[in-house]
Amino acid sequence: MAAETVSRVRCFGGEQRVLRHRSAETGTEMRFAAFLPPQAIAGRRVPVVWFLSGLTCTEENFTVKAGAQRVAAELGLLLVAPDTSPRGEGVPDDPQGAWDFGLGAGFYVDAAQDPWARHYRMRSYIERELPALVASELPAEMGRQGIMGHSMGGHGALTIALRNPGRFAAVSAFAPIASPIRCPWGEKALGGYLGSDRAAWREYDATALIEDGARLPDLLVDQGMADGFMANQLKPELLEEACGKAGIPLTLRRQEGYDHSYFFIATFIEDHLRWQAARLGLA
Amino acid sequence: MAAETVSRVRCFGGEQRVLRHRSAETGTEMRFAAFLPPQAIAGRRVPVVWFLSGLTCTEENFTVKAGAQRVAAELGLLLVAPDTSPRGEGVPDDPQGAWDFGLGAGFYVDAAQDPWARHYRMRSYIERELPALVASELPAEMGRQGIMGHSMGGHGALTIALRNPGRFAAVSAFAPIASPIRCPWGEKALGGYLGSDRAAWREYDATALIEDGARLPDLLVDQGMADGFMANQLKPELLEEACGKAGIPLTLRRQEGYDHSYFFIATFIEDHLRWQAARLGLA
Repeated sequence: MAAETVSRVRCFGGEQRVLRHRSAETGTEMRFAAFLPPQAIAGRRVPVVWFLSGLTCTEENFTVKAGAQRVAAELGLLLVAPDTSPRGEGVPDDPQGAWDFGLGAGFYVDAAQDPWARHYRMRSYIERELPALVASELPAEMGRQGIMGHSMGGHGALTIALRNPGRFAAVSAFAPIASPIRCPWGEKALGGYLGSDRAAWREYDATALIEDGARLPDLLVDQGMADGFMANQLKPELLEEACGKAGIPLTLRRQEGYDHSYFFIATFIEDHLRWQAARLGLA
Repeated sequence: MAAETVSRVRCFGGEQRVLRHRSAETGTEMRFAAFLPPQAIAGRRVPVVWFLSGLTCTEENFTVKAGAQRVAAELGLLLVAPDTSPRGEGVPDDPQGAWDFGLGAGFYVDAAQDPWARHYRMRSYIERELPALVASELPAEMGRQGIMGHSMGGHGALTIALRNPGRFAAVSAFAPIASPIRCPWGEKALGGYLGSDRAAWREYDATALIEDGARLPDLLVDQGMADGFMANQLKPELLEEACGKAGIPLTLRRQEGYDHSYFFIATFIEDHLRWQAARLGLA
C-alpha cells in the first residue's frame, strides 16, 4: 500500500499536499488532501486532525475554502481531508443524478445493498484503510488524533468517534446531520445503501449510538441559525437531547445569522482547531 | 445606476456579498464581490481595499480562497473584488479559447482594436464606473482607499495606482506582471487589445509608467521563488530596477518555496492587509 503525491504546495510555512492511492476497500483510486505543518516539515511527527466534508464535496473544498492551514501551522497539526465517496469508472451514481446520494454522498457507511456494496465502503475506508496509510506515509502521531466534519461529514465524524472509543481525543462538528435516521437526507442514504431494516441504520446515527450507550468525553458543535437545512435535515436539538440524557458535555453554539457555507466554517475553524489542540495536549 | 445583491452571507461578523449591475463601460452585466466588515454592518463608512485578480479568475477566487475576511473584519476594511473581464452574450473570446486572452483576461485595459473595443473596457470600468457604484451603494469611505492584486491583477493594481496619483494611500501586489510590454502574456494581450503601436502600450506597463515619471509613496510586493511564471512572465527584477532608479521605496519579499497559487496569497494576505491598514490610518 503506497500513496502517490499528486501536488505539493508551500502554505503558511508548511505544505499542502494532495495524494492518491489505490483503495482495497472502495476498489477505486482515492484522493485525499494532507496539510503538513512546519513542525512536520522539520521532521517531527505531529498530531492529526481529520476533517470530513459534506455532500457534493471532494478533498478540495475544505482545503481551499476553510482557511485552516494558518492555525494548523501555528499549532502543529497535520490536517487530513478525505474525499466523500468512491469515484471513477464502474462506480454507480444515483440514477437521477441527485446530489444527495451516490457520488459525493457516501455518507461514511459500508453499503450492504447492490449496486452500492462493491464500491461504497467509506466507513471502512475512513476508519481503517486511510488511517493505516496516513500512519505509514505521513509524519503523523497516530496516538494523538482529533476528528471534525461538516454536515454529512459532521455526521461522519460523530459516528466514527462514537464507534471507536478512545481513538479521538477531540471531536467537533459544524452543522452536523444529528440523526440521519430521522431526516430526509439520511433516510434516503441509509435506505439506499443499507436497505429497509432500520435496526441496521442505528450504528450510523449519532443520537442512536448515544442512546445505545456510546460516549464521547465532550463535544463542540457550531450551528448557523440562518442555515436553511437546520430545521428539516440537521436537527441539532436531537443531538442536544441525546447528549443531555447521556451526560455528554456538549457545547452547542447557535451562531446568529450564519448559513451552511464554508464562510461559516472559515469563521469558526480557528475555535475548533484550538479546542481540538487543547485536547491533544498542544495548547 | 444601481447594483442588485445576488447573495449575502455572514462571515467573521461581517457580510460577504456578491452584486451585479449593468455596466455602461462594458455593455454587459458585471459582477463583483464585496466584504463588509462588522464596523460597516454597524453603520459606519469604512476604508476600501480593492483586490484585482489574475488570469482565468472571476470575483469568486479571491473571495473564497484568500482568507482575507478574517483580517478585514478585525481591521475594519471593506474589500472589493471585481471580475477580470466582461462576459456574456456577444462578448468575443480568444478565437482559440486561450486562457490568457479574452474572457477572464481583460488585463485592465480599454481595448482599441476590433472586435475587443466594444466590451473590453476594464480600465474605465475599474478606474471610474465601479468606484462610483461602490461609493453610492456601499458604506465605503472613498477618501481612504488601497489597492492590491495578483499576477495580471498585480499589474492592474500597479498601473491604476500609478495613473491616479493620490487616490490610493496603499498599493501592494502578489507576484505581479511587472512589465507587460516585455513578457509573452503582456505582448499578446496589449498587441491584441491595443494594436501594434507599442508606444500606446506604455500606460499599461508599471515599469514604463515609472520611467515616464509616475510615482507611488511606497510599495509592497511578495513573489514566490517556486513560481513557475516568475522568470518568463512576471520578472520582478524589472520592477525592482524601475523603483530603484525612481527612488520609490519598494519592499520586494522573495518568498522561498512559494508558488503562484492562492495558497501563496492566503499565506501573506494578512501582511498585506495590515500594511495597507497602517497607510489608511487604521493601525
